[in-house]
Amino acid sequence: MIDIQSATSASAFAIDSVGVCNLQYPLRVLDRASGLTQTVAATWRAGVALPAERRGTHMSRFVEVLHERVETACDLEGFLALARELEQRLDARSIQLSASFVWFHTVRAPVTGRESIAAIPMSFAAAIGPGEGDATRREEKIIDLRVPAKALCPCSKAIADRGAHNQRTELRARLHAHSGMELPAFAEVIALLESCASSPVWPLLKREDEKYVTELAYDNPAFVEDLVRSMAERIAELPAVGRFTVEALNQESIHAHDCHARIRHAKPGYVGVRGSE
Amino acid sequence: MIDIQSATSASAFAIDSVGVCNLQYPLRVLDRASGLTQTVAATWRAGVALPAERRGTHMSRFVEVLHERVETACDLEGFLALARELEQRLDARSIQLSASFVWFHTVRAPVTGRESIAAIPMSFAAAIGPGEGDATRREEKIIDLRVPAKALCPCSKAIADRGAHNQRTELRARLHAHSGMELPAFAEVIALLESCASSPVWPLLKREDEKYVTELAYDNPAFVEDLVRSMAERIAELPAVGRFTVEALNQESIHAHDCHARIRHAKPGYVGVRGSE
Amino acid sequence: MIDIQSATSASAFAIDSVGVCNLQYPLRVLDRASGLTQTVAATWRAGVALPAERRGTHMSRFVEVLHERVETACDLEGFLALARELEQRLDARSIQLSASFVWFHTVRAPVTGRESIAAIPMSFAAAIGPGEGDATRREEKIIDLRVPAKALCPCSKAIADRGAHNQRTELRARLHAHSGMELPAFAEVIALLESCASSPVWPLLKREDEKYVTELAYDNPAFVEDLVRSMAERIAELPAVGRFTVEALNQESIHAHDCHARIRHAKPGYVGVRGSE
Amino acid sequence: MIDIQSATSASAFAIDSVGVCNLQYPLRVLDRASGLTQTVAATWRAGVALPAERRGTHMSRFVEVLHERVETACDLEGFLALARELEQRLDARSIQLSASFVWFHTVRAPVTGRESIAAIPMSFAAAIGPGEGDATRREEKIIDLRVPAKALCPCSKAIADRGAHNQRTELRARLHAHSGMELPAFAEVIALLESCASSPVWPLLKREDEKYVTELAYDNPAFVEDLVRSMAERIAELPAVGRFTVEALNQESIHAHDCHARIRHAKPGYVGVRGSE
Repeated sequence: MIDIQSATSASAFAIDSVGVCNLQYPLRVLDRASGLTQTVAATWRAGVALPAERRGTHMSRFVEVLHERVETACDLEGFLALARELEQRLDARSIQLSASFVWFHTVRAPVTGRESIAAIPMSFAAAIGPGEGDATRREEKIIDLRVPAKALCPCSKAIADRGAHNQRTELRARLHAHSGMELPAFAEVIALLESCASSPVWPLLKREDEKYVTELAYDNPAFVEDLVRSMAERIAELPAVGRFTVEALNQESIHAHDCHARIRHAKPGYVGVRGSE
Repeated sequence: MIDIQSATSASAFAIDSVGVCNLQYPLRVLDRASGLTQTVAATWRAGVALPAERRGTHMSRFVEVLHERVETACDLEGFLALARELEQRLDARSIQLSASFVWFHTVRAPVTGRESIAAIPMSFAAAIGPGEGDATRREEKIIDLRVPAKALCPCSKAIADRGAHNQRTELRARLHAHSGMELPAFAEVIALLESCASSPVWPLLKREDEKYVTELAYDNPAFVEDLVRSMAERIAELPAVGRFTVEALNQESIHAHDCHARIRHAKPGYVGVRGSE
Repeated sequence: MIDIQSATSASAFAIDSVGVCNLQYPLRVLDRASGLTQTVAATWRAGVALPAERRGTHMSRFVEVLHERVETACDLEGFLALARELEQRLDARSIQLSASFVWFHTVRAPVTGRESIAAIPMSFAAAIGPGEGDATRREEKIIDLRVPAKALCPCSKAIADRGAHNQRTELRARLHAHSGMELPAFAEVIALLESCASSPVWPLLKREDEKYVTELAYDNPAFVEDLVRSMAERIAELPAVGRFTVEALNQESIHAHDCHARIRHAKPGYVGVRGSE
Repeated sequence: MIDIQSATSASAFAIDSVGVCNLQYPLRVLDRASGLTQTVAATWRAGVALPAERRGTHMSRFVEVLHERVETACDLEGFLALARELEQRLDARSIQLSASFVWFHTVRAPVTGRESIAAIPMSFAAAIGPGEGDATRREEKIIDLRVPAKALCPCSKAIADRGAHNQRTELRARLHAHSGMELPAFAEVIALLESCASSPVWPLLKREDEKYVTELAYDNPAFVEDLVRSMAERIAELPAVGRFTVEALNQESIHAHDCHARIRHAKPGYVGVRGSE
């Protein structure tokens, strides 16, 4: 049967990225540092570079490779290995791969100790290709977490005679791990991010807990600017992190719009893959 | 050219609703009571009933009729007339039609009076068909508004030594108008809903305004239950409203999930269209 | 500590539904007929009725009850039992509960037999309360599936000299099960819905499979009207189904908007809960 | 009243971007080359850099400046001027600003000439700050369009005895304009993108038109790879474009997932703002 994708192309343009997206496929996530595994419904995006002279990639191979590994517990290093395997099977010279999922994280209410389970949006990502600013082949492995928390406005607290507006915030961290180094357990990163907020949030709070959360937030006001600076300071201390992006997104309770802040930072000597975020 | 849609169907099943959706098309909205008009990018859904013996409807006529009226200012009564026209052009005996859009509403900050423009998600809806519980042909015309506001938790205020958690809330009202009667201006309905919250929200607040909003909310705590009851009480007094649904959706700032409440109410004697919401 | 929610309310309005939504919490889904279980990241919505004289419900109990059952395999009957438990713990006289999730369904490509895993959006729902049109207490248990498939346009095929437009469609079935009766396995319902389309879709197809799917669809053209009628005819034959809604949503490839159709049907003698969908 | 935002910060971290997002505010869009204007409901994102020594930005000024210009027709050059004004009012040294909206584009069906209005998702963006790879202050102005179209699979056509699978595709172009040069009219860019697809799509097609579209697509099969190469070749010829990204996103009709491709290209000598996309 004819293989049109393998035909040659007359175009002068190579393609930066071609592949599949919005693909839901299971992934057996392993949090290496804690040893925990969860089988998740991941949403995948995968794209490889295609040279100018080749007409098309072979889309079905993306799904084939995911399926072959569907039973295998996969930590961040395993995810990079999956990207390498895909790149090879697609006969490509660079790849970007990501899988977004919900990680369930067991927590205890701050006063009553009541147990419940928080849903943390996360993703794994891997990139392979020429380095930023050089032609050397580089690899990156990245985890991304979005932790819900609470932010209380320092300005509102300072100027109001009573109360202070506060809101749900999303604290996001995107951590690029140094080759050969292991990031902390997911739970540790979550706790680190929560410690930067006015207060964490919990799925289950009894009245004693609600009193505690209300007062904790009132005692720790923070702007979006304060949130991302605290996150950056704490994350910069993690030896395994070579580069990071931190973001805060406040669902302002005095407006119908949101406020955001972002810091991007790379440690000296860390070189990423060109075009990877 | 062959017209397959007009063929007969051997199926025993009539179709409740068939038509188009996720269609973006302009609409020149007229707020009759205020005289204001805005041309909006509406998202349309239209469906007609199809008897068992007919194979298909004629999808292109939905767009044809919208296009013929695209220059005409359309209030809620005009929207019902549009539904009648569509029903006739599609040779149908019942129809449900809706258009969702953003209405821009000019406001002034509570202390400084600084002007800004709030975006209010609204929709117009019309339904024609057999009545609920009878076979009489009925018509309904409906406006739906989702007004952002602020809710401060009465429990948190009562138990905490300082502060109280508060959050953005969405106050939704769905108003079915009596035939021949006119609803208040959009701005009046928006103000009515805002008056039920702990505080309104504004796009633009200076520090003096922020102090006012913080204290106003602290002085007016409300659960989602309180919000919908206040809305129901106020809306029940509007003579033009024959039936309504009110909802509140709190984006809780101490949880990553939301809280909701809903009241549905019909005044004695109001009969809607079967299957209309 | 003061319990404000338990205070009395002076409002004349009872509340139809109050509770939590947009809550992500794990659920161990059991497909009773096949014996398969999967732990899913479900998105929950739960609401109970509140009498006029009570000020508030106790939101934390919703999460408490979900957490107590988080390890228990839950089929549709178990889901109804969960609703009963919630209703009792919240001291309510009616409840509506739903959980939406992705179910992974293993399939084989039609020619090569290559295995892959399809992600099927599903939900469980339960409703308890006064019956439609009577005051008797009723219970409902419902599964809802949205199966992706392919629809090829009969009109386009008939009028064009070559080719025919076709598109991804979503086939949705909402099945209300008779008390004491068991629905078919999820895989059977999925296959039943797919058999109504121009062709199923698969995550993984090799060239031989792609040829088969292309020709299968071309040989089985279907309008959205045809899709819902086929679905209705097939589902009406399932003895365990007392009432159902079927829908088709075509992402038209010749337009930027979608087409939809819907049939609702109740078998004689089936009585649902008032306000349940 | 105390101004906490203006306090000094002890943090070592400057902030890349801080500001507002998910803000809906009106914009009077002017398509300079055609002279057409439309008042749209834009969704805004604005962020400025904040030096390490300053604690916070002044969020209300973003809305203030938008409001002052709300009556002024704004083309892409005016949008850059708006970014400059915001940067100055916020006392910042770099800014990124974007506004996303729907542009209504009148079209005629290919055979019957029937008129209808297509909704094209667009955005304006502007960036000011240090250049990529140098410290010189640079400015960028960008338009982004997402044009719906139809893609028919060359492989499916070649291997199948009858028919060929086809689907809705989204063709996206992000055009960075050279300083002092004017992009073509929106309608010209839309037509250019549509000419790269298997066929355009239209909101309103009668049977004669549907036959034409079906055959046109069958005669012009294109992979996602072909789509982005055609777009790149055509856009590279526009003198006013200094840099561009083109993307295609196929809603595959034989899968439940999508396929994508992307080409990024900068002409020699074009230097953008660091961190702008």
